[in-house]
Amino acid sequence: VAAVTAPSVEIVAIGNELLLGETVDTNSAWIAARLAAEGIRVVRVTLAADDVAAICDVVTEALRRTGTVICTGGLGPTPDDLTRHAVARVYGRRLAIDESWIDVLRDRYRRRGVEMPAINRVQGEHPEGATLLPNERGTAPGIVVADHDLGWAALLPGVPHELRGLMEQGVLPLLRARLQPAHRIASRVLRTAGLTEAALAERIADISADTGTVSLAFLPHITGVDLRLTCLSVDAAADPTAALAARLRERLGANVYAEGNGDMADVVGAMLRERGLSLALAESCTGGLLAKRMTDASGASDFLQTGFVTYANAAKRDLLGVEPETLALHGAVSEQCAREMAAGARVAGRADVAIAITGIAGPDGGTADKPVGTVWIAIALDGTTHARRFVFPGDRSEIRDRSAQAALDLLRRLLLRSG
Amino acid sequence: VAAVTAPSVEIVAIGNELLLGETVDTNSAWIAARLAAEGIRVVRVTLAADDVAAICDVVTEALRRTGTVICTGGLGPTPDDLTRHAVARVYGRRLAIDESWIDVLRDRYRRRGVEMPAINRVQGEHPEGATLLPNERGTAPGIVVADHDLGWAALLPGVPHELRGLMEQGVLPLLRARLQPAHRIASRVLRTAGLTEAALAERIADISADTGTVSLAFLPHITGVDLRLTCLSVDAAADPTAALAARLRERLGANVYAEGNGDMADVVGAMLRERGLSLALAESCTGGLLAKRMTDASGASDFLQTGFVTYANAAKRDLLGVEPETLALHGAVSEQCAREMAAGARVAGRADVAIAITGIAGPDGGTADKPVGTVWIAIALDGTTHARRFVFPGDRSEIRDRSAQAALDLLRRLLLRSG
Repeated sequence: VAAVTAPSVEIVAIGNELLLGETVDTNSAWIAARLAAEGIRVVRVTLAADDVAAICDVVTEALRRTGTVICTGGLGPTPDDLTRHAVARVYGRRLAIDESWIDVLRDRYRRRGVEMPAINRVQGEHPEGATLLPNERGTAPGIVVADHDLGWAALLPGVPHELRGLMEQGVLPLLRARLQPAHRIASRVLRTAGLTEAALAERIADISADTGTVSLAFLPHITGVDLRLTCLSVDAAADPTAALAARLRERLGANVYAEGNGDMADVVGAMLRERGLSLALAESCTGGLLAKRMTDASGASDFLQTGFVTYANAAKRDLLGVEPETLALHGAVSEQCAREMAAGARVAGRADVAIAITGIAGPDGGTADKPVGTVWIAIALDGTTHARRFVFPGDRSEIRDRSAQAALDLLRRLLLRSG
Repeated sequence: VAAVTAPSVEIVAIGNELLLGETVDTNSAWIAARLAAEGIRVVRVTLAADDVAAICDVVTEALRRTGTVICTGGLGPTPDDLTRHAVARVYGRRLAIDESWIDVLRDRYRRRGVEMPAINRVQGEHPEGATLLPNERGTAPGIVVADHDLGWAALLPGVPHELRGLMEQGVLPLLRARLQPAHRIASRVLRTAGLTEAALAERIADISADTGTVSLAFLPHITGVDLRLTCLSVDAAADPTAALAARLRERLGANVYAEGNGDMADVVGAMLRERGLSLALAESCTGGLLAKRMTDASGASDFLQTGFVTYANAAKRDLLGVEPETLALHGAVSEQCAREMAAGARVAGRADVAIAITGIAGPDGGTADKPVGTVWIAIALDGTTHARRFVFPGDRSEIRDRSAQAALDLLRRLLLRSG
């Protein structure tokens, strides 16, 4: 197989808040995923401070390596926003101001009945000769600077929905024209639940030792281990990841719950929709997280009747009909309580299926008998209630995430078995 | 004022999944925040691919700049985990194996009644002469390599809770001894809600023009704009950010809802706890997100009675007593429906206060009258129900986040007023 390489770019994310750890850089991952889909490879991401010299260094180095750089952040109206100045210096240009963009902003403010703050004027500034990309969602336009020797740079605001709009409408068309990706990156993800990374690796050891031109990676998450199959495809029609995915799926059976970005909540939602089953939820330690996950994508109204967040014992009694004796004898984190919560939610929520979760997410509340991480999950389905105990590792947030995922996985496997 | 500088480090996060955008790098922000608190400054973060040459380049450059590097990721048991190999090459050392760590792993597996997968053996590998940091939460130990000329590097696994444990117990004590931070970074964050970045900047323009040795940054989030005050303090007793924070607080009044990492949900929770008020929630478009946020921290059982996720109209009727006529005449996204949801949740949830949210989070369901982003929020408190309409920008996830935050902010301001 001839070696094929995808055109490569670098991302530079700018902001002291990133280096102080006050903000997690989610933009780079979003941009990288978007570019991968276009057959463009991100070879490095660098986070730099709001400092003209630091930005100059990082952007200069990145341009030297790939010739194509996307910068995010530092385009706001306040004095700590220095990306425009730094990039102007990299390209040896002075800052010019685009009066037509100021007019757009002034107009927008006027329509809302307010005067444009004078401070917004700096958002018309850009390195002389640059192209401005109008931002429909915010006040900072995207800026594209190009130079035959130095290379090409796009500057985008750090606010995620503004950045995304500017990428789609402004930057991607320009990048396609500039880089003309000839090969697409064939990439495929199989999502598994219920196996540790090592157990999964052993189960597919022989397959992973012989993947041909496809590279196989293990991505462990709180919610399970993903398998990523990647291949720089010479021929858009032939996708060599398909055959490998089929072999893995056959070996792993029900442990694979989705392909791609598919969320377990969406998978379970689709199964309920297909079977015409309605769902009720009763959450204690997850406190609404499972309901939130079921409604992250639109369309849950097809099956989701009601979610009860019964954090207090009184609510478990009053709304779900959990027996006071159950709470007194076994406690709220018990098989009995989980079963009664599920049965009660199914009735009170007028649903075909109910999921109940009750556990100790910590950091307090653990005992020798029931350590932090102890979670009972019950599912009422087809006239029976299934219950299972878990002891999850991790902190409060991880225990809650694992609980919601395990509950969905349990329902998924029951639905698979019931056909 | 004499210029003072904090000792500096760089972070290198390793993994193809980061450059393909399949995983967001949350570790670097956590490490950076932890180091900032110790008076250690992160000057650059670099994300690199699972590729020996790429890791070598990035780690070598980072060591050259600061002499102290923390690497995360690429220490798993599978063949795509290459950090050990790359860093051994950077230091010109061969890989040795630590049999005592293998024994620890074998023992752990044995206690769970299973044989250690042979694949885990590679997790005892490390550059010869390195120090291993035992990992109580996972199979990859931390690795610390030091060389007088090249500098110091710590390698940590990418799994967040493993990394955090190893940082606290292993890496931070070593870094304190190595870098001896003489000055701490005094940092303080004021969190605001209800003002845009530009409006906020104008309101405090005179204050921000004259901040002395303190630097002031604006951090816009979906949930509001944070103001970060930072100062490298020569004297631990004198914190020059305190006086500036007081001036800003005085100017901004109720628009400041917290200092530090304080979440709006915790602020509102504390106010309810203090006033002895119980809370019920009725969520439609946010689908459990508000309940999840109220229970992200432990302790919500002090005030949270019940959360109702009434995604379906039938649930709004049956559980909250919303009138069928209301739904027929005004629709589920209406002032009337929000008011009835709040009043109904207060009664059904047996609570003193209730919050109701009903809106169109999209992407579908918008009309000319009620575009995507239209959200009605109602709060039942002290015998009256307050309702307010919002039209939020952004995608589904952002609209849901803004809705939950606005609902909490509305309740917070009502509680402040009612004393």
